[in-house]
Amino acid sequence: MRYKVTIEYDGIPFVGWQKQDNGLAVQECIENAIFSLAQEKVIVFGAGRTDSGVHAVGQVAHFDIINKEFEEVVVTNALNNHLRPHPISIRKTEIVSEKFHSRFDAIERKYLYRVINRNTPLTFEKGRAWQVIKKLDINNMKNCIPFIIGKHDFSTFRSAHCQSESPIKTINDLKITQNDDDIYFGICARSFLHHQVRSIVGSLKMVGEGAWTPQDFQNVLNSKDRSRCGALAPSDGLYFMEVKY
Amino acid sequence: MRYKVTIEYDGIPFVGWQKQDNGLAVQECIENAIFSLAQEKVIVFGAGRTDSGVHAVGQVAHFDIINKEFEEVVVTNALNNHLRPHPISIRKTEIVSEKFHSRFDAIERKYLYRVINRNTPLTFEKGRAWQVIKKLDINNMKNCIPFIIGKHDFSTFRSAHCQSESPIKTINDLKITQNDDDIYFGICARSFLHHQVRSIVGSLKMVGEGAWTPQDFQNVLNSKDRSRCGALAPSDGLYFMEVKY
Repeated sequence: MRYKVTIEYDGIPFVGWQKQDNGLAVQECIENAIFSLAQEKVIVFGAGRTDSGVHAVGQVAHFDIINKEFEEVVVTNALNNHLRPHPISIRKTEIVSEKFHSRFDAIERKYLYRVINRNTPLTFEKGRAWQVIKKLDINNMKNCIPFIIGKHDFSTFRSAHCQSESPIKTINDLKITQNDDDIYFGICARSFLHHQVRSIVGSLKMVGEGAWTPQDFQNVLNSKDRSRCGALAPSDGLYFMEVKY
Repeated sequence: MRYKVTIEYDGIPFVGWQKQDNGLAVQECIENAIFSLAQEKVIVFGAGRTDSGVHAVGQVAHFDIINKEFEEVVVTNALNNHLRPHPISIRKTEIVSEKFHSRFDAIERKYLYRVINRNTPLTFEKGRAWQVIKKLDINNMKNCIPFIIGKHDFSTFRSAHCQSESPIKTINDLKITQNDDDIYFGICARSFLHHQVRSIVGSLKMVGEGAWTPQDFQNVLNSKDRSRCGALAPSDGLYFMEVKY
């Protein structure tokens, strides 16, 4: 039986989604919890690999359990029990067709990047937002949105470690909203390059601070030159929000 | 010179606002930071004593520095530097009259209580909200608001350790709002009894769950009998939001 799970996690204590030698991964914690439930060694396939420190509200993954069948609610509750005390929460379990693939069937992924624009230290939100001290001009940042939405060569906003075949991606939507000191960047695409969201936000911050004009931003994007990208926004503020199928 | 500071803190690692023998208090951390800045041993007077695990967004305190004068922004920045890595943030410093008293001059205090009404474990909000699994009927809880607002004998909602002279308090306002799974109880009064907010929320939860009718709630309040109070809501969800002068 194939199970699809929707997962929330606080990225702070993890090396990221994917299993690695240098620390604890979210994927590994969930695989261990499934072993505790079903006594089967399974591989959990995630819709996206989040880096160390990146959070998720709606990561999606699938896995197969061969020898036993469990009701959806039993999987949710048992995995959550076995996942304690890790800050990982299985929000929902669905039994799906054996053809379903969390990664390849996704038609849209949504990320949220959260900036807190204030000059005194963060308490509750430490590690969960990017604290930017200089006041950002949100309207100037919004003026860059038309340059980003659509199909572009995003070489400027691509990590050197990116494994994507092509630097060309299509951004379906980008919204920038503000609530007091909080600034949210909501961005949707079928798929993203490695570090694409953090690179875009790091460069939008240059515009927000007044170091770049919106025209500078467009020139940097058009240059397809990674070295002209603004400093990468930290992992702290990035949330993997939703996957559509 | 007398300084008034507005303070945000995550209550999780502290025994509460007030210095105690059994662990680290917020007051103590701030007094130590002032000593590092000014080489003076001062007492910091808070507008309200928060219990262990209770959070603050807008606690207010005052203290005197005798031998030196500092600009407001210097105090904010120096204290924040010396407070690291504690999750305490001095949000604002104001030089005030030597007659100002953070506790006695307060004309209104506002608390917020946060419930997350969902059935899978909390991640980001662990220790920062009360997770209630059974679906709460917010309209039934709202029907209790008229019983609470105004001047009443709140003996039912008063801790045995309360040092207040009288159980009679005046609640100026109570608002219950909902945003998806989040339920917020915002409550204002000149002053509160010990455990009053947590007692009220614990009893409103009985109504939200359907264990009590709003009429039961009113009867419990009118009984002035502490033993009839609903189970105390945990400290996790309580935030000291604001003090008005």
